Amino acid sequence: MRDAPDIYVRSAGTALPGPAVDNAALARRFGMPRAWEEWVETFVGTRRRHFAVDLATGDVRFSLADLAESAARRALTASRTEASGVDLVVMGTSSPDLLMPATVNTVADRLGIDGVATYQLQSGCAGAVQALDVAVQMLRTGRHRTALVLGADSCAKHLDVTMDAARLPPAEQINGALFGDGAGALVLSTEASAQAVAVRHVHNRLVGLGREPGQVIDWYGRADRDRERPPVAEDYKAIEESVPVLAAEAARAVLGALDWKETELDYLLPPQLSGRMTDRIVAHLGLDGAHEVSCIRDTGNTGNALPFFQLEQLLPRMVTGDRALAVAVESSKWIQAGFALEKV
Amino acid sequence: MRDAPDIYVRSAGTALPGPAVDNAALARRFGMPRAWEEWVETFVGTRRRHFAVDLATGDVRFSLADLAESAARRALTASRTEASGVDLVVMGTSSPDLLMPATVNTVADRLGIDGVATYQLQSGCAGAVQALDVAVQMLRTGRHRTALVLGADSCAKHLDVTMDAARLPPAEQINGALFGDGAGALVLSTEASAQAVAVRHVHNRLVGLGREPGQVIDWYGRADRDRERPPVAEDYKAIEESVPVLAAEAARAVLGALDWKETELDYLLPPQLSGRMTDRIVAHLGLDGAHEVSCIRDTGNTGNALPFFQLEQLLPRMVTGDRALAVAVESSKWIQAGFALEKV
Repeated sequence: MRDAPDIYVRSAGTALPGPAVDNAALARRFGMPRAWEEWVETFVGTRRRHFAVDLATGDVRFSLADLAESAARRALTASRTEASGVDLVVMGTSSPDLLMPATVNTVADRLGIDGVATYQLQSGCAGAVQALDVAVQMLRTGRHRTALVLGADSCAKHLDVTMDAARLPPAEQINGALFGDGAGALVLSTEASAQAVAVRHVHNRLVGLGREPGQVIDWYGRADRDRERPPVAEDYKAIEESVPVLAAEAARAVLGALDWKETELDYLLPPQLSGRMTDRIVAHLGLDGAHEVSCIRDTGNTGNALPFFQLEQLLPRMVTGDRALAVAVESSKWIQAGFALEKV
Repeated sequence: MRDAPDIYVRSAGTALPGPAVDNAALARRFGMPRAWEEWVETFVGTRRRHFAVDLATGDVRFSLADLAESAARRALTASRTEASGVDLVVMGTSSPDLLMPATVNTVADRLGIDGVATYQLQSGCAGAVQALDVAVQMLRTGRHRTALVLGADSCAKHLDVTMDAARLPPAEQINGALFGDGAGALVLSTEASAQAVAVRHVHNRLVGLGREPGQVIDWYGRADRDRERPPVAEDYKAIEESVPVLAAEAARAVLGALDWKETELDYLLPPQLSGRMTDRIVAHLGLDGAHEVSCIRDTGNTGNALPFFQLEQLLPRMVTGDRALAVAVESSKWIQAGFALEKV
């Protein structure tokens, strides 16, 4: 729609649970050899991450709602937005606290947000973009004015601290080093402010036709919790091959939709699977004039939360006229996603 | 937005798994006494339902993707819509097959839908309205033209057929009689057709501030699957008290937004918790001039699928000028929802 209002990101906020766990601490905790620790440093490239559970006891110290609430409060404070002014909440997660109620509604309740539309997307690494997309489209129709967008993930139900890590298949050992827990939040508005950054385009596209999923995460109910099949499976070969290609396609799609030249980009927020994968993706994207904004080495892959950590770094750095491109790829059933921001 | 295009429902389709299970068969299977069967007939008012699992063996005969795919094919066929013409898919469910990939993407793959935006909402009894809402808003911005909206739920992971039902608390025994599995689909379009019905308004509002959830459904991961706490809990007293009130508020909100008089309504699609609850809600709504469209006695509460069963009955009955109101209430964290249709 030609006369649709511009939508602005007014602020970002994030939250990480507990202390940082570096590779040495992770190796020590799970009895992995020194060689594994070095292998993680070199071939994964993720230095530290945070967990919602106490690694020593397995106790859950932070629920997903706890993390999302903290991130939301920081984003609301940063843009001096009252919770009562929020008229739309959209959250993305792959690891909700419960199936019902949706975690988004627990978070809204704690923030004092009520009487508004709320949505929770079941999503993975493209989830932050999907949540942004739903919020932007809803703001564009004029039905809403101020949206809180949330993304969060937690290993609390997946990470069995009693497992014998040394006996797990290598792919599962990598997971322990790759992923971290966290939450992020944005305040979006139809009204600009001095700090605001305009959302110029959002791209979100399933591209999985006829392709096997690259990542599968299952859940158990009462009826099938004795099942032996492992709940998590990744095809890291497919991920390594496909993600750089899909990231480049998403980048071209966003730039093409806006008729932006690659040389006009000031910032690039690349996908964050691991430090090393991000390096490979950035090299493949070839957008050399843009400053890379990455967080993966210090947060791990926080799934639905991750682009918010990049945005929290980016927003205060942008000056009028700056253009930024973010790209995300979800390897579950293969989704390519991205968005473009411009400081006005 | 004033110049936003009208959005039309072009067709509905549904799917039910396996044979109907009546109350006598349910009582027989779980060793419940004759008195329980009579009590279900009289005080629940649900006569039969369908299950995705074989009640004798516990084998899963239909995945959620199976059910949603069947419903989608029926809706697409009914409006002669090619899968290649669908440029948006939105699904609501509380019971996805997996956490990742989202079931919506598995269904899209099977239908041959690719290169488009897909969203899966984690939702309960208001989920069909939420999915409709997201699709309608996205169509309104002009970015999409043809949407497939899906809603589906399955007991496959929740229903332990080995349990001793007679020893369960009464609230859990009720669940076995209340809920059923199923899927539904709608084709929405920005273009009218002879069979099309215009979506005049969609209402979706969290109203749970400071109120305890009326329904909680948990899931297990690898780390917590030995946990003893039961994964499902309902507060039926709160549900009985609050749902008629919230349904009336939602009905007033939709009618008020359109300035429609109660006497102008031709059809009412009330919330479908159980036959008896629906009767109480309809009485409380007091919209006596509108024909009731209900399915609950023959499907059970199919959660995210349910309004699609009502719509499948409704659409062929509407003639030019007819107006219909649908109301849904989600008791998880308390969501009131509804929508209005008009035959043009």
